[in-house]
Amino acid sequence: MADDVLAGYRVTRQPYYRPVADEVALFEAAYSVRMPMMLKGPTGCGKTRFVEYMAWKLSRPLITVACHEDMTASDLVGRFLLEASGTRWQDGPLALAARHGAICYLDEVVEARQDTTVVIHPLTDNRRVLPLEKKGELVRAHPDFQIVISYNPGYQSLMKDLKQSTKQRFGALDFGYPEHAVEAEIVAHETGVSAEVADKLVAIAERARNLKGHGLDEGLSTRMLIHAGSLIAQGVSPLAACGVALVRPITDDPDMRDALDAAVATFF
Amino acid sequence: MADDVLAGYRVTRQPYYRPVADEVALFEAAYSVRMPMMLKGPTGCGKTRFVEYMAWKLSRPLITVACHEDMTASDLVGRFLLEASGTRWQDGPLALAARHGAICYLDEVVEARQDTTVVIHPLTDNRRVLPLEKKGELVRAHPDFQIVISYNPGYQSLMKDLKQSTKQRFGALDFGYPEHAVEAEIVAHETGVSAEVADKLVAIAERARNLKGHGLDEGLSTRMLIHAGSLIAQGVSPLAACGVALVRPITDDPDMRDALDAAVATFF
Amino acid sequence: MADDVLAGYRVTRQPYYRPVADEVALFEAAYSVRMPMMLKGPTGCGKTRFVEYMAWKLSRPLITVACHEDMTASDLVGRFLLEASGTRWQDGPLALAARHGAICYLDEVVEARQDTTVVIHPLTDNRRVLPLEKKGELVRAHPDFQIVISYNPGYQSLMKDLKQSTKQRFGALDFGYPEHAVEAEIVAHETGVSAEVADKLVAIAERARNLKGHGLDEGLSTRMLIHAGSLIAQGVSPLAACGVALVRPITDDPDMRDALDAAVATFF
Amino acid sequence: MADDVLAGYRVTRQPYYRPVADEVALFEAAYSVRMPMMLKGPTGCGKTRFVEYMAWKLSRPLITVACHEDMTASDLVGRFLLEASGTRWQDGPLALAARHGAICYLDEVVEARQDTTVVIHPLTDNRRVLPLEKKGELVRAHPDFQIVISYNPGYQSLMKDLKQSTKQRFGALDFGYPEHAVEAEIVAHETGVSAEVADKLVAIAERARNLKGHGLDEGLSTRMLIHAGSLIAQGVSPLAACGVALVRPITDDPDMRDALDAAVATFF
Amino acid sequence: MADDVLAGYRVTRQPYYRPVADEVALFEAAYSVRMPMMLKGPTGCGKTRFVEYMAWKLSRPLITVACHEDMTASDLVGRFLLEASGTRWQDGPLALAARHGAICYLDEVVEARQDTTVVIHPLTDNRRVLPLEKKGELVRAHPDFQIVISYNPGYQSLMKDLKQSTKQRFGALDFGYPEHAVEAEIVAHETGVSAEVADKLVAIAERARNLKGHGLDEGLSTRMLIHAGSLIAQGVSPLAACGVALVRPITDDPDMRDALDAAVATFF
Amino acid sequence: MADDVLAGYRVTRQPYYRPVADEVALFEAAYSVRMPMMLKGPTGCGKTRFVEYMAWKLSRPLITVACHEDMTASDLVGRFLLEASGTRWQDGPLALAARHGAICYLDEVVEARQDTTVVIHPLTDNRRVLPLEKKGELVRAHPDFQIVISYNPGYQSLMKDLKQSTKQRFGALDFGYPEHAVEAEIVAHETGVSAEVADKLVAIAERARNLKGHGLDEGLSTRMLIHAGSLIAQGVSPLAACGVALVRPITDDPDMRDALDAAVATFF
Repeated sequence: MADDVLAGYRVTRQPYYRPVADEVALFEAAYSVRMPMMLKGPTGCGKTRFVEYMAWKLSRPLITVACHEDMTASDLVGRFLLEASGTRWQDGPLALAARHGAICYLDEVVEARQDTTVVIHPLTDNRRVLPLEKKGELVRAHPDFQIVISYNPGYQSLMKDLKQSTKQRFGALDFGYPEHAVEAEIVAHETGVSAEVADKLVAIAERARNLKGHGLDEGLSTRMLIHAGSLIAQGVSPLAACGVALVRPITDDPDMRDALDAAVATFF
Repeated sequence: MADDVLAGYRVTRQPYYRPVADEVALFEAAYSVRMPMMLKGPTGCGKTRFVEYMAWKLSRPLITVACHEDMTASDLVGRFLLEASGTRWQDGPLALAARHGAICYLDEVVEARQDTTVVIHPLTDNRRVLPLEKKGELVRAHPDFQIVISYNPGYQSLMKDLKQSTKQRFGALDFGYPEHAVEAEIVAHETGVSAEVADKLVAIAERARNLKGHGLDEGLSTRMLIHAGSLIAQGVSPLAACGVALVRPITDDPDMRDALDAAVATFF
Repeated sequence: MADDVLAGYRVTRQPYYRPVADEVALFEAAYSVRMPMMLKGPTGCGKTRFVEYMAWKLSRPLITVACHEDMTASDLVGRFLLEASGTRWQDGPLALAARHGAICYLDEVVEARQDTTVVIHPLTDNRRVLPLEKKGELVRAHPDFQIVISYNPGYQSLMKDLKQSTKQRFGALDFGYPEHAVEAEIVAHETGVSAEVADKLVAIAERARNLKGHGLDEGLSTRMLIHAGSLIAQGVSPLAACGVALVRPITDDPDMRDALDAAVATFF
Repeated sequence: MADDVLAGYRVTRQPYYRPVADEVALFEAAYSVRMPMMLKGPTGCGKTRFVEYMAWKLSRPLITVACHEDMTASDLVGRFLLEASGTRWQDGPLALAARHGAICYLDEVVEARQDTTVVIHPLTDNRRVLPLEKKGELVRAHPDFQIVISYNPGYQSLMKDLKQSTKQRFGALDFGYPEHAVEAEIVAHETGVSAEVADKLVAIAERARNLKGHGLDEGLSTRMLIHAGSLIAQGVSPLAACGVALVRPITDDPDMRDALDAAVATFF
Repeated sequence: MADDVLAGYRVTRQPYYRPVADEVALFEAAYSVRMPMMLKGPTGCGKTRFVEYMAWKLSRPLITVACHEDMTASDLVGRFLLEASGTRWQDGPLALAARHGAICYLDEVVEARQDTTVVIHPLTDNRRVLPLEKKGELVRAHPDFQIVISYNPGYQSLMKDLKQSTKQRFGALDFGYPEHAVEAEIVAHETGVSAEVADKLVAIAERARNLKGHGLDEGLSTRMLIHAGSLIAQGVSPLAACGVALVRPITDDPDMRDALDAAVATFF
Repeated sequence: MADDVLAGYRVTRQPYYRPVADEVALFEAAYSVRMPMMLKGPTGCGKTRFVEYMAWKLSRPLITVACHEDMTASDLVGRFLLEASGTRWQDGPLALAARHGAICYLDEVVEARQDTTVVIHPLTDNRRVLPLEKKGELVRAHPDFQIVISYNPGYQSLMKDLKQSTKQRFGALDFGYPEHAVEAEIVAHETGVSAEVADKLVAIAERARNLKGHGLDEGLSTRMLIHAGSLIAQGVSPLAACGVALVRPITDDPDMRDALDAAVATFF
């Protein structure tokens, strides 16, 4: 059982998550052997929601870290703070999770510099330790601790990719956009629009996703459909709602914008 | 209702804003579901004024941050300050807005480094939280909090563009220069020049905007017309006022300068 | 009226400035509406002297900042200093000027990083505010405050140019080398050499300025002529004085040096 | 005998290590003359486990440092910490090991910047000293101290390689994947799966290793087989377990993924 | 008269300097009008010695700063130091010289970043001020203050050159290697070798200087001849002394080394 | 005589050094005039050992600094440390040596950034001073002080080479691998192996050195032969000892490894 210091990180209400395949059972098996896990898939397809759901299901606190290029190892591990009575050590989110037994979720880990990801290595093999070199302490991970990372393969580039020596430390689950019916169910559930409207929004998304690599860098995410649905539920006309929530955010190109606007007009 | 700490950020006088289309209603709908919003458009077309107007209309405090390349995550989120009695945490503008319920407006967000923009992700999905990792606190956003960013598509470059995983978190509104009559009305209102003079200034601007991409990087903005008008209202001759306020700021090229000066002379 | 804290920045003696066209009147009109101003022109043609003269004429304190590549936003805005009794905020020159009502002159602003120039944006539109983000204070500009920048178009490069969104916030005045008679009058006034010698020095400068772009990166500035004149006034031979003050500083190329030495010998 | 300060770094339980050739005897001879040692080989083939085993066998404390690009010399050597009563020096892991007589293991040393690796030079020749330049102290290495580094030749690149002047300071041992029977024995021992399942997992790995350089950057490591085995031991179907633990982590390419899935299906 | 704080910077003994042309008189005239001066010339030809001689002759303290790429503006201007009773401002060498009236010599100024050189601008025009922006103080230069920089034109590159706006603020004097007889006199005076030996050393140098641009980056400097002479004066054979002091330092190329050794053997 | 603060830097036991030519006498002459010296030669050929021997012979303390890319001027010169009673200055190794009269040896100086090497300039000409700019002190070098640098010409690259203005401040001595008999004598002396074994090890090294530039970046150093000999002296078979100490450290290429293994097998 984790300490009280993690109280703020408990997932107290069941997050809405609509399973797609056997990902829940596989994650449970992985957690049972505390295997580090990697969630792979495009932007906005539900990876973050999934890990919240699993944290709730496994009754484990969840500490989420949005990774970025300038995140230092200290941002993960901790640092000394200067106080009136001298310096005080403060655990970073990774040390906090390791010490007290949370699931630590590093979101978009490929954004972080490779040196930052190297810091997690000793926690991902049989040692399960985190050296706090600046403090001179070797934290042995709490038995409940697990590390989970997300990874968008579409982003990988020459400059930014996980090292093989990092990847091989993780089991991996593929995520994608849900099937039509499932996605429509999600959109309706989250926004309150009718099944018919949700169905149309998903159909628009599917058209746009076919343009990925043909003028669009990424497909329309489920999150964007929820945005559009919620505007419609507020009384905004479907055409205007799709313009604001689906088309304008995803492209600056006038031709692509007109093409997408036309696709929207086909359905509404 | 927001706390007193935001008193300095309240928009107490109605800003002059001349609506162009249905942008006010769409923004109100977006705010009602607290959808993160992106205002797209060229320099000086009124995006900043619009968000001030909406803050006034919605009776919400507005915290504006001018983004730049060296803005760190700490500049947005906060930092520890050293004081006589030790360190004291000071919320950055984003934390201030999230904690107390302001609209936080990140101006020219594309100027910021991608890592800085990643910081806003947890505030832009259903979690609506801001992890203060250095403080070890998870701020849950105030119900009134909304995040708004501005974005000039003409600036996007290979090096600087918003990530798709950021863009997809926002609804978007397109902004452009107002129509002739509207823009002239704005210029006259803001400077006190006659309708005739304002009309001529807008006509000059329209000529110059046609040169965008043909020797000018950007069109003449409404702000520049107001500059010219205010000099004329001070008794400066229209030719000199346009030289100072419209032509010299926008080009260093002698031929382009002469062409623009000639265009001015056509009208005055 | 500005506070006493600006006493050291008052221009108490009338600077020698020889007007060239209507720049004094235009600047006065711009100041009357507190329009941010940009002074454009080559090295050493008198931009700095002009702004000193205007500060004297308008009876406003002048705070000058020499911009450079490593100037941070904090260098302009201010920072916390650590003292025995904790930290103390110290306004930077821009905050000082904005708070107490000085003219703030950012010399060679194109040298600064774009992020630093973004800091001045909120002071250059109708908001006239300066957010001190680190201090959590929003400084509303003193009614007397004006911002002036200088800009050498010859320096603009792919890497360093002002952003359009910055340029459009300023009115602009062009500066160049004065006409022959005016420049000779300036040289004689500043150095005490005879009108004849001053006339010859200006003639040499005009020859050298024709070589700009043909082996010289910049023309000979008025400042250099004053250097040469002051050496002559000290009894140095005109040939040696021109060698030291005009030729050797401006070129390292032996052929160009000989050509310039020959031009000098034509006149003296 | 090392001091108590190293108590946390002692390897108290015999690590499971299955010798492959004469590496144990060679390392013992190298340790007897305190020769700095370099362990060469691919990701996940057991280098870290080997050095833990040797530390146990030699009864020496082991201090492991995961190297990364932003590790500074101070991270290895130590730094001054600010405390209420002034600054206090804290040995870094290298100084700790040198002063008190541990084996210091620098994992993936090629990741560190060359300047960081230069710091170890005085410890790797007959001087056996570590200058703490910031403290002004010259630490003479404890007689028990030895330095060990790991190095993955497959990673060497134009940008990142050890300098010859570093390499020549080390003796070196080559590591590779164990032979089929040995590796199967390891997988069975570590996961509890049957010899038959372990045998199949190794056979899959051998197929995948043949693809190194033909679409895979690295071979499947023994560690990954243990991951797959441990999922199977939890009741996950072998096909799903291999998908999660062997295939998805190692490739993002749909064709390669299908080929590997097919290879798995051949055996299970 | 300068303050006591500059006592350590006074040149109390007459430095040995052998004038080459009218440089002493020209510098005196430049100092009399406090014109900023630039000393141009190759490595080791006596620029530093000249400025020391002039400081002695003018009875002014001399503060020398060896410029380098990482010198910050604070290194020149000063900084706050943290002390028990809070922070204390410490003038940098430039502020020290400006405040108390020394000659400030910036050696190899082209090595410094352009931002650092911009700091000296306000001291080099008629303002003669140094803004200590971090301290909020405007230092008006002491009447005795002069700024001198050295500059090696052979080093100028695309990346590193002085800006025209900097160069034009200085008068300039060219320096080169002395004539044969003068250089031999210098070598004999400084080392105690016979006129004959000194003559031969200069002859070797002249041969080597002809190779500049043909395999040697720079000519042999007078300083190197003094090195060779001083070894000979210690009883080292001329051949060995020239090998150590003239040939080996200047080239790593075996062919060039042999050619230079042969040149030495011609004379000794 | 140097102060007690250098006690830890005295070379109290005669280091084993086998002179190759007249380098000892030349260094003694150079030291007698305190000429800065540069030791040139490949990795592991005995430059460090030579300077230790000379420090012992001249009875001078020796302060060695391993240079690297991130060494700052402060690392050489010193810095202020924060203590309970304020800041305290701590001399860096160069200031320590200059103040108290040690030989300061900068090992692999070409690794340091050029700005760091510029710091040593004022110590290498007739001024013999070290300005501690941050402290505002001008250290005049102790009469016993000498500066020595090492330099591996094989490493010079476009990016990293000493500046001519640095090189010309030093006398230089070339170092190489010793002759066969001398090197064998060294190997036997240092390891205790028989003359026959030492002779074979040197023969292997000579073969490998011929491969420099043909697949090997550097030749086998004497240090590596001592490694091999010491393993043999521990009872390791010569083949295995050469594999660990000579072949595996120097190449990752399988073909080169096999070629070198074959060369070893020829002799043992």
